[in-house]
Amino acid sequence: MSEPHRTAAPPRFKALFQSFDDLADGARGAERLAALRAELARRGLDGYVVPRADAHQNEYVPACEERLAFLTGFTGSAGLLVVLAKEAALFVDGRYTLQAPAQVDTAAFTVVPLAETSPEKWIEDHLEKGASLSFDPWRTTLDGRDKLARAVASAGGILVAAADDPIAAVWADRPPPPRGAVRLLDLAVAGEETGAKLRRVREALAAAKADGLLVSDPHASAWLFNIRGADVAHTPLPLAWSIVPAEGAPLLFLERTKLSAAVHDALEAVAHLHPVGHLDDALAAFARGRRLRIDQATCPVRLANLVENSGGTLDKGADPIALLKAAKNPAEIAGMRAAHLRDAVALARFLAWFDAAAPAGGLTEIDAVEALETFRRESGELTDVSFPTIAGAGPNGAIVHYRVTHATNRKIAAGELFLLDSGAQYPDGTTDVTRTLAVGTPTAEMRAHYTLVLKGHLAIARAVFPKGIAGAQLDPFARQYLWAAGLDFDHGTGHGVGAGLSVHEGPARISKLGHVPLAAGMILSNEPGYYRAGAYGIRIENLILVEPRAVEGAEKPCLGFATLTLVPYARALIDLALIDPREREEIDAYHRAVRAAVTPYLEGAARDWLVLATQPL
Amino acid sequence: MSEPHRTAAPPRFKALFQSFDDLADGARGAERLAALRAELARRGLDGYVVPRADAHQNEYVPACEERLAFLTGFTGSAGLLVVLAKEAALFVDGRYTLQAPAQVDTAAFTVVPLAETSPEKWIEDHLEKGASLSFDPWRTTLDGRDKLARAVASAGGILVAAADDPIAAVWADRPPPPRGAVRLLDLAVAGEETGAKLRRVREALAAAKADGLLVSDPHASAWLFNIRGADVAHTPLPLAWSIVPAEGAPLLFLERTKLSAAVHDALEAVAHLHPVGHLDDALAAFARGRRLRIDQATCPVRLANLVENSGGTLDKGADPIALLKAAKNPAEIAGMRAAHLRDAVALARFLAWFDAAAPAGGLTEIDAVEALETFRRESGELTDVSFPTIAGAGPNGAIVHYRVTHATNRKIAAGELFLLDSGAQYPDGTTDVTRTLAVGTPTAEMRAHYTLVLKGHLAIARAVFPKGIAGAQLDPFARQYLWAAGLDFDHGTGHGVGAGLSVHEGPARISKLGHVPLAAGMILSNEPGYYRAGAYGIRIENLILVEPRAVEGAEKPCLGFATLTLVPYARALIDLALIDPREREEIDAYHRAVRAAVTPYLEGAARDWLVLATQPL
Repeated sequence: MSEPHRTAAPPRFKALFQSFDDLADGARGAERLAALRAELARRGLDGYVVPRADAHQNEYVPACEERLAFLTGFTGSAGLLVVLAKEAALFVDGRYTLQAPAQVDTAAFTVVPLAETSPEKWIEDHLEKGASLSFDPWRTTLDGRDKLARAVASAGGILVAAADDPIAAVWADRPPPPRGAVRLLDLAVAGEETGAKLRRVREALAAAKADGLLVSDPHASAWLFNIRGADVAHTPLPLAWSIVPAEGAPLLFLERTKLSAAVHDALEAVAHLHPVGHLDDALAAFARGRRLRIDQATCPVRLANLVENSGGTLDKGADPIALLKAAKNPAEIAGMRAAHLRDAVALARFLAWFDAAAPAGGLTEIDAVEALETFRRESGELTDVSFPTIAGAGPNGAIVHYRVTHATNRKIAAGELFLLDSGAQYPDGTTDVTRTLAVGTPTAEMRAHYTLVLKGHLAIARAVFPKGIAGAQLDPFARQYLWAAGLDFDHGTGHGVGAGLSVHEGPARISKLGHVPLAAGMILSNEPGYYRAGAYGIRIENLILVEPRAVEGAEKPCLGFATLTLVPYARALIDLALIDPREREEIDAYHRAVRAAVTPYLEGAARDWLVLATQPL
Repeated sequence: MSEPHRTAAPPRFKALFQSFDDLADGARGAERLAALRAELARRGLDGYVVPRADAHQNEYVPACEERLAFLTGFTGSAGLLVVLAKEAALFVDGRYTLQAPAQVDTAAFTVVPLAETSPEKWIEDHLEKGASLSFDPWRTTLDGRDKLARAVASAGGILVAAADDPIAAVWADRPPPPRGAVRLLDLAVAGEETGAKLRRVREALAAAKADGLLVSDPHASAWLFNIRGADVAHTPLPLAWSIVPAEGAPLLFLERTKLSAAVHDALEAVAHLHPVGHLDDALAAFARGRRLRIDQATCPVRLANLVENSGGTLDKGADPIALLKAAKNPAEIAGMRAAHLRDAVALARFLAWFDAAAPAGGLTEIDAVEALETFRRESGELTDVSFPTIAGAGPNGAIVHYRVTHATNRKIAAGELFLLDSGAQYPDGTTDVTRTLAVGTPTAEMRAHYTLVLKGHLAIARAVFPKGIAGAQLDPFARQYLWAAGLDFDHGTGHGVGAGLSVHEGPARISKLGHVPLAAGMILSNEPGYYRAGAYGIRIENLILVEPRAVEGAEKPCLGFATLTLVPYARALIDLALIDPREREEIDAYHRAVRAAVTPYLEGAARDWLVLATQPL
């Protein structure tokens, strides 16, 4: 009998930072659900709410926090499970209405699309009068608790904060908490010392008449203390809490095992260091008689209650660090520019390879992802991808949050579009770039749709506006040409991006919900799209930096955008009949800039490719 | 001694529908405030809140409801007075921060700009612990009461709903309630019978699972019963309440003395008619055991409490009539078009007169207002102006809500801009139009600013978008050219307009706050502006009709705008170097349409003027 074929040589390309497996399976869901119900019964509880969140409301959570996946097998990035004695409903948004039923045991779990029924409505209808529903006060925010409370009250039930985690009690092989090493950022990268940052935070606290700030978002602690970590995937995040008093040294709660002696000493110089286990006592002691700013969007009920029960007052509002962190300083901007140049070199090498290899057929989505990561890794600086690459060939491109697995992996065929949305983490910056590629000859319709998306993308890039304007007011510029054609796209135009931190960062964004005024130094994505279900997806994404703009006769300081991303648009997809002279010049000017910046770092075929790709239209 | 000069002949022009007097004076404010305080003391109350509103939250209120003006002398269209034992604070918005201190006795009343301090904040700071603050439950909405309640609770005081109106007790010469005759709309004007409208309202109630609707907005009752009245200025409004049950005939509360026998009989055929005095008992009887939709934005606390105290349940939400009424039917659209054509003839005659008379100097703002009303009246159809004309010469044009009085009346001088914002009520429709006129030769700067405003106005007019898009998403199109020049304007781009009803109508609008999707049949204003403080104001306003638009390849039904207003733009103010070929053609096409529609109704100088004014650029 012959063995199955194995390749002797290692593959040329390989992805180390993302997997193409189905990460969990739901086969043990019924058994685990039964164990949880037994545990709840032991505690005299009738139901339990399982969020996907961790205690910090992180986008990426460590393995030990994957309660929802453990219990159900569902691996989506958002979801909520409500377990009652006889029913268990898993609520998922539009991204996961197909994936969730495929992953979970639907005999045990009812998958409910959020667009049809909210968890609150479902609780109102299903919780029995007098029954108790319990929730996890560490992983539920005040806003989340309030919504549950209204639903439970309406059902005539009782809402109970779980004293400790009932899932931990039934999770035998639970992974240990992460212990990623913490590193210090050089001042040359961070651009501002912790002391100076603290002064600005305290000014914001004084303006809010708060005596202190509980920092529940670890991105904010990472910014404040100029540290990075390795506790979750795709974001160099150290899981940490901190307390910033209006006066005196801040308290930083971080496991000692993550710190080298040098890092420990450096942090001790600016903060009182504590293990996370001390947070309760320290917060209780600090809160007494004080008014403490807490961020409703991330602060756990557990800690908010602790503040109040310790004689403190809650000042509910945005963590002022979020706005300070969003406006990058010159060093951060320089780091982001360096990261984007490095990334552009890798992208050019990838695109040259792709354009040569793809027309022959045979490449798959996974091949492309592995190649792209490899070219990035060859920069010698790649620390992670900033999110799992979205690589959608043909109809897969129309699935906005598509994640390729071995099961879905599709050949990239001639005549199809290939949507590739990816990003990298480098020590000095974070990237996020989407290009839509034509394999072979695109149809006239594909070119028309690509050009409408590109026109919206250019309209954002050229926008100039007075200080005070928010992203919601710019978002329509990206959609106007699609609208006029009776089309639209069902996501925001842009999100904030961290500097060597999270690829999704608040508080500003370019979307209907973007109500925070843009400010100089903010970095956002500019990524309009168009998705033809069952056929193809188009998205064009650059990162853009908000910068001051001198305008003659202006009554207010003005802002505009500088584009950080340095990757050519797809010439073959631009319909010249649909663009006006200004747009043509804008595309040509961008390509001139890309060529000038990137060619010095390329040679051979990649260099030749870039020169061709950046010729005037 | 010679008498002062009197004109023997009557003036050629006259305004009958608006006055140029300062309507109230504050000389008796201190005395009236003392009387109110004595009345409050008799009732054991420490304070009282006096809103400007009537029980329907109307924009224009009858004389008997002008409590704020009676008490203080302040005649602005918005304001709130908080009377405490030792202080009385009058809160006004940015429009009235100059006018209010000029009108009121500032020894008795402290005028507080809302931008500096909210009434709630002021109450928190000034109400003594344990003191009682009383409010008028007929003229305060649930939302307004909730805000007061939070402030009073925070001050440690007690909030009390006044059993009856303490101002009535001290208002000796209070005017009687209005008794404007009610007229029926012909079906040819209304376009839909009450029965058919009722069916659509009931569908909305069924969708909301409500057993009935309390109609607190008289505009909604006027629409539902196809009636108009004459109880307030500038809007043909009959003050009325109604109750629409999910099944059975509606109840209409309207004073019998306003109804002729014929109107009475016609209304009796579709509703149970009651005097307003029966509302309490009828609402209490209806509410028992029922879930009643009430509109939080207009429903008085008094009636909401009555529903709950009678065993009913409140279903707080928008009155579904607001959305039904906003989408005009073909008959209403035809009436609005007829009204706009009639109005355009009057405007052309006015503008021809103005262009001939103004350059000589000597015309004042009031002269222009009187002439414009006279030309409109000469149509034989004018029933009122739809609001007091805003006529701002030179720097007065930069005051967005300027109202000309004999005291402020300004000569219209050569080299200045003249902003004229006016509207008419006709039996079949309502108009609202703003034109900015150059007298003599405008500066290059005036022309540049006018052209930027016009470009934004054209961008709105040409917008095409899928169903589901709201006004907030179109508003930026009006501002984009001003933004790029570092400029903006501090008001929304457009408001809804009623069909032969209120010139300001919800729920849709084109502004940052316009979150209601636009729908075919809605009529809105398109009125971007620019205001150079101390120098001039520019605004260009047409009314636009939302209509279906066929778009090839569209994935959703599409909408666009048809312009109803037929008045030329100011050629002398258009800087041709700033507009592109498409904009030039749009202006020319608009002028061709104006000329074709309006010249058949003009003769002589007015006709000649219009022909010149509508020549291609």
